[in-house]
Amino acid sequence: MTNDSHILFETALRMRADTVETELRLLLDDRILPGEIVRPAHLMAAMRHGALNGGKRLRPFLVLESAALFDADGDAALRVATALECVHCYSLIHDDLPAMDDDDLRRGQPTVHKAFDEATAILAGDGLLTHAFDIIADETTPLPAERRAALVLALARAAGPGGMVGGQALDLDAERNKPEEAGIIRLQAMKTGALIRFACEAGAIIGGASTADRERLAEFGSAIGLAFQLADDLLDLTADAETMGKATGKDAAAGKATLVSLHGADWARSQLSGLVSQAHALLEPYGERAIMLKAAASFIAERNS
Amino acid sequence: MTNDSHILFETALRMRADTVETELRLLLDDRILPGEIVRPAHLMAAMRHGALNGGKRLRPFLVLESAALFDADGDAALRVATALECVHCYSLIHDDLPAMDDDDLRRGQPTVHKAFDEATAILAGDGLLTHAFDIIADETTPLPAERRAALVLALARAAGPGGMVGGQALDLDAERNKPEEAGIIRLQAMKTGALIRFACEAGAIIGGASTADRERLAEFGSAIGLAFQLADDLLDLTADAETMGKATGKDAAAGKATLVSLHGADWARSQLSGLVSQAHALLEPYGERAIMLKAAASFIAERNS
Repeated sequence: MTNDSHILFETALRMRADTVETELRLLLDDRILPGEIVRPAHLMAAMRHGALNGGKRLRPFLVLESAALFDADGDAALRVATALECVHCYSLIHDDLPAMDDDDLRRGQPTVHKAFDEATAILAGDGLLTHAFDIIADETTPLPAERRAALVLALARAAGPGGMVGGQALDLDAERNKPEEAGIIRLQAMKTGALIRFACEAGAIIGGASTADRERLAEFGSAIGLAFQLADDLLDLTADAETMGKATGKDAAAGKATLVSLHGADWARSQLSGLVSQAHALLEPYGERAIMLKAAASFIAERNS
Repeated sequence: MTNDSHILFETALRMRADTVETELRLLLDDRILPGEIVRPAHLMAAMRHGALNGGKRLRPFLVLESAALFDADGDAALRVATALECVHCYSLIHDDLPAMDDDDLRRGQPTVHKAFDEATAILAGDGLLTHAFDIIADETTPLPAERRAALVLALARAAGPGGMVGGQALDLDAERNKPEEAGIIRLQAMKTGALIRFACEAGAIIGGASTADRERLAEFGSAIGLAFQLADDLLDLTADAETMGKATGKDAAAGKATLVSLHGADWARSQLSGLVSQAHALLEPYGERAIMLKAAASFIAERNS
């Protein structure tokens, strides 16, 4: 990736993030929807604290760009993108809890249980997760019921016990029973990979793409999900705390094996380059329309924060 | 309610509970579904511990009986009933956590964080909540996508920040800022009422009932939800720990005001009788078909455990 295209991509990412942030703010305000009784101000404030955290909004970006490949309805894609970000943010809130990673800071800000309290953080995570399914299933999300149901199912499966939550459970075990290489790969495919895979697959579902296209996008998502994790592990070894805005070297300190700690940084860089080529190849059928998604794959592999 | 009909109802409730238990066991086993990677054994065991707890399965019962009013598909109703029970059980697991109610026992068994650990309990709750939406949205649940999406939406709204989770947040506040009567009613309508209302409304959705029927069942659900909470508060004041299988007098000890503590036991009994009459009246249009639901309303108001 040239420096120019890096800058262009980051600008596009930031623009999308602004749109997602606005939509999140709208969906997480204190106004009630039909069927709701009241949205307690304190809970909603905690949910917003956890969700409006200045993240890069990479997963929503992938939903929006994948959807664009199939000329999907933009409003529908934005809804699904926002719902996915709610799920991602819920997982961070629960991950940061004292009983889990016990983190005080997230992107330089106090984590939800620090800014509020532990009970409120648990409920704020529960609220974001539940609300994500509300957003997708809502009949004001301009999609046929068939696609809304398919998206709920795909998201629930990516986030559930056979996906992200299962990955978090494996991660808890990993500190006690060091997994072998296959175990690490599986853990990461679940903990971080499943939602990134869903992000890319979702675009195809929203756009009513063929099963073949849906599978192709899901495979692209798996490749960049793996790249994302490798890049993260590489950064954990090499970056300093200032660049990352969070504590680094934590995996090593926690005695967690990663593929990078097993095989070294050079191996990781060569793997990353292979994954980017594979991801780009998967997008060949879409030609120029896939430029932004290809740039996303490169960005994920090359990012330094 | 005569003693005979009480016994008949309890037998029916227990039979339904067995069916729900079997379905829960099936849906929460270690076999993976398409799209899942692996279901970590430890996490699934914790989810089962929290879900297969010998509960009365009152909410599933209400789904099944409401659905029967409209000749709904029995398999579909059982799926939705089981999904709702997953949501109920997730809320108990998170409610029992040290940061929340800090309970060691639930139905005489160690709570999930006691039997496993706190992190696993948080994830088990998250897993049950997520899996509930999977069960409903799954295309093997024999319902048109339109109804699956409507059920996901209604459940997410009943369980979300404007429903159950919001009620739990209000409950946390209630220990600090004692709410007035209107505040207590709202808190209870959210914390326990919303899911019971959903249980009854769900039957109408599953059966493809008219909007008027759907609203009537929802209203029935609200009436018995309120009755459920009043009966619970009454029991908290009067029952001994042995009958309840959990600590009693906890509300008073926690300084929590309830409608019963405000107005007394006699007032509560008269309210309960009024709510049962109201609930029965709402079911008049369904004649003899509604006998089981009417018995449920009486049972809820008169239960002593």
